[in-house]
Amino acid sequence: MIQTSLLPEDALPRGFRFAAVKAGLKASGNLDFAVAVADSSASAAALFTANRVKAAPLIVDSRHLHRSGGRVRVVAVNAGNANCATGEAGLDACERVCAAAAKTFGVEGHEVFPSSTGIIGVPLPAGKLIDALPKIEQNLAPEASHFSDFARAIMTTDTRPKSAHAWVDVNGTRVRIAGLCKGAGMIHPQLVPHATMLVYIFTDAAIYPADLDTLLRAAAEHSFNRISVDGDTSTNDTVLLLASGASGAKTDAHHPAFKAALEDVCLSLAKQIVADAEGVTHVVELQIEGAATDADALLVAKAIAHSPLVKTAWAGSDPNWGRLIAATGYSGAKIDPDRISIWFGAQPICTQGGRVADFDEQRAHAYLKNREFTVRIALGIGNGSCRFWTSDLTAEYVRINAEYST
Amino acid sequence: MIQTSLLPEDALPRGFRFAAVKAGLKASGNLDFAVAVADSSASAAALFTANRVKAAPLIVDSRHLHRSGGRVRVVAVNAGNANCATGEAGLDACERVCAAAAKTFGVEGHEVFPSSTGIIGVPLPAGKLIDALPKIEQNLAPEASHFSDFARAIMTTDTRPKSAHAWVDVNGTRVRIAGLCKGAGMIHPQLVPHATMLVYIFTDAAIYPADLDTLLRAAAEHSFNRISVDGDTSTNDTVLLLASGASGAKTDAHHPAFKAALEDVCLSLAKQIVADAEGVTHVVELQIEGAATDADALLVAKAIAHSPLVKTAWAGSDPNWGRLIAATGYSGAKIDPDRISIWFGAQPICTQGGRVADFDEQRAHAYLKNREFTVRIALGIGNGSCRFWTSDLTAEYVRINAEYST
Repeated sequence: MIQTSLLPEDALPRGFRFAAVKAGLKASGNLDFAVAVADSSASAAALFTANRVKAAPLIVDSRHLHRSGGRVRVVAVNAGNANCATGEAGLDACERVCAAAAKTFGVEGHEVFPSSTGIIGVPLPAGKLIDALPKIEQNLAPEASHFSDFARAIMTTDTRPKSAHAWVDVNGTRVRIAGLCKGAGMIHPQLVPHATMLVYIFTDAAIYPADLDTLLRAAAEHSFNRISVDGDTSTNDTVLLLASGASGAKTDAHHPAFKAALEDVCLSLAKQIVADAEGVTHVVELQIEGAATDADALLVAKAIAHSPLVKTAWAGSDPNWGRLIAATGYSGAKIDPDRISIWFGAQPICTQGGRVADFDEQRAHAYLKNREFTVRIALGIGNGSCRFWTSDLTAEYVRINAEYST
Repeated sequence: MIQTSLLPEDALPRGFRFAAVKAGLKASGNLDFAVAVADSSASAAALFTANRVKAAPLIVDSRHLHRSGGRVRVVAVNAGNANCATGEAGLDACERVCAAAAKTFGVEGHEVFPSSTGIIGVPLPAGKLIDALPKIEQNLAPEASHFSDFARAIMTTDTRPKSAHAWVDVNGTRVRIAGLCKGAGMIHPQLVPHATMLVYIFTDAAIYPADLDTLLRAAAEHSFNRISVDGDTSTNDTVLLLASGASGAKTDAHHPAFKAALEDVCLSLAKQIVADAEGVTHVVELQIEGAATDADALLVAKAIAHSPLVKTAWAGSDPNWGRLIAATGYSGAKIDPDRISIWFGAQPICTQGGRVADFDEQRAHAYLKNREFTVRIALGIGNGSCRFWTSDLTAEYVRINAEYST
């Protein structure tokens, strides 16, 4: 499931340069400020958190995209501070960084797309970011290693950088798509998206912003909107898709191969976030089927993915399927308890609401010791279904999030 | 907050006898089968889980109460097996226990109220319970120590028995109310109630079943429906209120003192469940105010009470109030981020959506080291409010629930 963080040769979309530096926001002293610059104005589509509390950069992004008509030249992302619950001062700080970046890179202020991730409620040290801009400018290069540095710089509790890429043939021309992301906790994107997940996807296809938007919404719905680590929807979730057009190949929202490639990249990034979930020891693919509607299937998947009792049972490889039945029962989906069937991988566990006659507990326990496994639940009501990816809940998750870190 | 499990003199409602024995369902060999018998037919009101998967005894209880017109003679509760997801065989097993109990105690089968708590999906060993009935019958007595044994027998992951009591003067006659309960995990009652919580409340007042029902619904709404440990709503939650009439004092749904006393008993029991939550190290009272409606206030309380990030921060006494802001933002309640204020106890933390100017982090950290503390959030929108009680999320909770115990 894990992709290498370094792109292979010729995977980097043309028309973009990347750099990352240490601006002094992370206590660790690691890379914490990343910038991507488009050689010329790129088409942009963005999705933001559904949380009613939105961090300052998301508010600024919306203003800038509105003013630019969906065009972006500079993406500027800091880790170590979320610039959320910071009031007017937070908006001012964000705009000051954008203005300085615009000056440094010779673009308009509203062509800058800022993002922040880190602790909530602490003033953004804008000066540190502004002071780092000249070094960023010197380091910009269209290199896979710089793309990798970008992915490393935006990490918070992530244990590794995350990226994915694809090539697509568009009318005989090679088009590249490459995405990177961060996210390990506060992950339950509702795109209008999910918990501090930051995702940046670049392509050198030529596409209008409106088509990009259609493509991104469709791809996000079955990738980022189908994962959860802890059910906490962040104030800072952002997915940005930029198209430089540098490949010379024009496409639109209806090119099947491009659509599929974009979805593949999004799904890979989404799964990498779950695989790097805080404290994770098991990655679980939920397959819900036979629901009255797809929406009902999603209700069941989310109830299971957010149940502390289910997630802790997974941590112990405990085949305690009763907790799955209980979560299904309170999910709000239409169900008939006597029609529910459950499989762990290929092994039937529960049929018609009761334990299978030849239930092999040790076999189930052994299967759940795998790092990745599948839980399939058939409701026997209709044709609604969904796939959903989530993680277990471990003592290490608690340790990471209980540490007195402020 | 914790009440003694032994009732003081003359606190036991008259007209009931209690007993508990070791029937061999708990691996520990502890008391696991408890029975209460009313000397004559008692008025009854019951609330059950809103989970669409309901355990066999809940289905049997509904049938029996319907048939008896809200009258109960025998309450029979086992721990060690939930008799849920056990299909027709589970219903048959439950009815066999009821029939045997009816014969033993000389009552009708539909006057027996069964309950079960423990593992889901494993057949109920009805024979063990039936075999234990003669010993139960020998031990029945109207004694506080037997009441206490009842409370001990129904424990699962609870660390201590839980009970509460009150006296009320009804037209010059002393009336007694005494309740007991169990519950430590899978606790998010939605009464139509919450996660395997079992609550039994006895009174010797004389009241019609319809009035009892009105009183119980009102009392549960602001007690059992205002607590959550893990957000998992059980398949077995049950609250039963029985009135023997043995005091000779007649009352109804409109007696203010009786209503208040019943609410006090319910609130005490509900708080005791949170105080004994699995792995708990902090008990938190949430006070939400200034919401558009009471329902909105409850949305905010539940989002906070179910947020793993908030609950783990509490485990570490971490004053990371940004997580409260984030949970408030995704709660679904109407909010204005710039109007939110937060207090930890008496200390202001956040005002108008931002950190207070003189934020004293060490003082906040010290306050959150208390075992019990209060978090108050004012939304600044309207007059809706609620109180809600919940626990932190600790590594010990994970350990308890990740143990491969099936």
